[in-house]
Amino acid sequence: MPATLNRRFLLRERPVGDFDPKVLQRVVEPVPTPGPGEALVRNRYLSLDPTNRIWMGEGESYLPPVPLGEVMRGAAVGEVVASNSKKFPVGAKVAGLLGWQDYAVVSEAGDAMAQVIPGWLPVPLTATLGVLGVTGMTAYFGLFDIGKPKRGETVVVSAAAGAVGSIVGQLAKIHGCRVVGIAGSQDKCEWLTRELGFDVAINRRDANWREQLTAACPRGIDIDFENAGGEILEAILERMNNHGRIVLCGMISQYGKDQGNAPGPRHFVNLLTRRITLQGFIIIDYIPRFPLAQLKMLWWLKRGRLKDRSTIVKGLDNAPQALTQLFSGENVGKLMVEIDEAPTA
Amino acid sequence: MPATLNRRFLLRERPVGDFDPKVLQRVVEPVPTPGPGEALVRNRYLSLDPTNRIWMGEGESYLPPVPLGEVMRGAAVGEVVASNSKKFPVGAKVAGLLGWQDYAVVSEAGDAMAQVIPGWLPVPLTATLGVLGVTGMTAYFGLFDIGKPKRGETVVVSAAAGAVGSIVGQLAKIHGCRVVGIAGSQDKCEWLTRELGFDVAINRRDANWREQLTAACPRGIDIDFENAGGEILEAILERMNNHGRIVLCGMISQYGKDQGNAPGPRHFVNLLTRRITLQGFIIIDYIPRFPLAQLKMLWWLKRGRLKDRSTIVKGLDNAPQALTQLFSGENVGKLMVEIDEAPTA
Repeated sequence: MPATLNRRFLLRERPVGDFDPKVLQRVVEPVPTPGPGEALVRNRYLSLDPTNRIWMGEGESYLPPVPLGEVMRGAAVGEVVASNSKKFPVGAKVAGLLGWQDYAVVSEAGDAMAQVIPGWLPVPLTATLGVLGVTGMTAYFGLFDIGKPKRGETVVVSAAAGAVGSIVGQLAKIHGCRVVGIAGSQDKCEWLTRELGFDVAINRRDANWREQLTAACPRGIDIDFENAGGEILEAILERMNNHGRIVLCGMISQYGKDQGNAPGPRHFVNLLTRRITLQGFIIIDYIPRFPLAQLKMLWWLKRGRLKDRSTIVKGLDNAPQALTQLFSGENVGKLMVEIDEAPTA
Repeated sequence: MPATLNRRFLLRERPVGDFDPKVLQRVVEPVPTPGPGEALVRNRYLSLDPTNRIWMGEGESYLPPVPLGEVMRGAAVGEVVASNSKKFPVGAKVAGLLGWQDYAVVSEAGDAMAQVIPGWLPVPLTATLGVLGVTGMTAYFGLFDIGKPKRGETVVVSAAAGAVGSIVGQLAKIHGCRVVGIAGSQDKCEWLTRELGFDVAINRRDANWREQLTAACPRGIDIDFENAGGEILEAILERMNNHGRIVLCGMISQYGKDQGNAPGPRHFVNLLTRRITLQGFIIIDYIPRFPLAQLKMLWWLKRGRLKDRSTIVKGLDNAPQALTQLFSGENVGKLMVEIDEAPTA
């Protein structure tokens, strides 16, 4: 019987400007053998996230850059197929930074931030990457811990049809806020208002999107859940209320730019005169608090208050091209790759 | 006996770019008569503050712009010389937005934010504009409420020899922090380290001030008390630690610029990746909490833990020229005008 192999995407070079799939190099290697205290995970779904672009850059960030020639870092879920670890028994579902590959070795030392997913969780594995995973947790802690919404306040969400944004808007509606989304197409806007209950959704490709934003926020903006950066953040800064909160979750429009030299947003002085709190956050700081938040999200999910939508691309070999969807705005909801059968020798 | 007159400086036009004393017009008018529920205050000391430049601009801000042709807004202290108000009896010392003039009418309605200074307060009237006044309160609430310092953390203060900055640094030292000041001359730097106990003071006119800042903060920067903005804020953003706090108190380097179009600081993305909280604040939000903070400041002042220094310019007619000192960096500590005798008809 032929041996199964492990497809891996290595970071060949650092992208300059926008992400280009060519910076990733496909290699096929033997499946690794787990050592003492380690387990082998067969990856099933690979999460594609804007932060992947940050990790490819050479600049320092909240995690070290992916070293050139090593496997691309990525969140994924899979199941344990061989184990020398009681923490990760065979058959266990595991989520973590398992990488762009068919098989990952996880260790009890925790270097891949791997967590066992409770077997009784009554949701599909895809949800553990989406609404109950890092994506959902980012929406939850960003909105509630940093945004501190009050009933009746106006919340603006940029990249609103994306994985995080689409959940943020639903959570803000559950919380009794007025929710305005900014997205990249008319179809997305219709999905946000018709399916997810956003009060208003604005297509940022409309020439008059700024006027639409003004009209959508007659009492100004209290909370900005910022995923976009750039001119969208500038337009929001112009419309923020006194004592507003900006949850700086991402700036997808800026990731291809020279961060050291790119100027910050115009209207920065409004942060001072309007006593705005702007807080950057990275979800890895909240990992110890995930379980209770996941229970709440599960409750809303099961009651139909929260809708989980994914754009699933089939086949690991399609992952590099699929990642470009995030930056061109093609995906709706959580973008992930369903990993297909691994090749054999 | 000739009647006393009231010198007033009216805002004749809005400055373009840097403040120019010519935008203020001196007029001499009869002393006003207080109506029912009003009192007449003889101003004694006029506070000169960077925010005066903001109030002259036409742009919206945290207070409406000073209307053209009306008396320039300014904080001042004085004493009641005629009264139809129980709240403001004759002889009472009063602090508030009393304006650039010899005499101000204050009303119980509170439109000048006027407060009676307790008569038993064992400090000179100048201290009620400085360390116990809005200046000291700005330092106190900005550092403690927003900066949330912990013992041993590194605090950087820009415009450190200014009214607010010099107090912030002393409070941070009392709190057990490492304190690094950035100021505009060697003399100021020596005052900060020798007299006020700053650990390091850096002359921003030195060619290598950025390298000095790196050396002064071997464990990075935890708290930035920001008074300057511009390239100083950018250099600090480069050196901030994860979970740092930026107290956005002022941006004196930016006040002459076109705020709508001026870009924000470079390294803005660090706010995200380093999970920094940046909070703008305006001291008027804290007025209800002044009394207890003033008691604490008084305690430190009387024990010699806090030094109060002012640059006092004599003569109301010199106020417009004196205001330029703030922007050229000539003053040390609190800049104020000691109001001289009013002219008579």
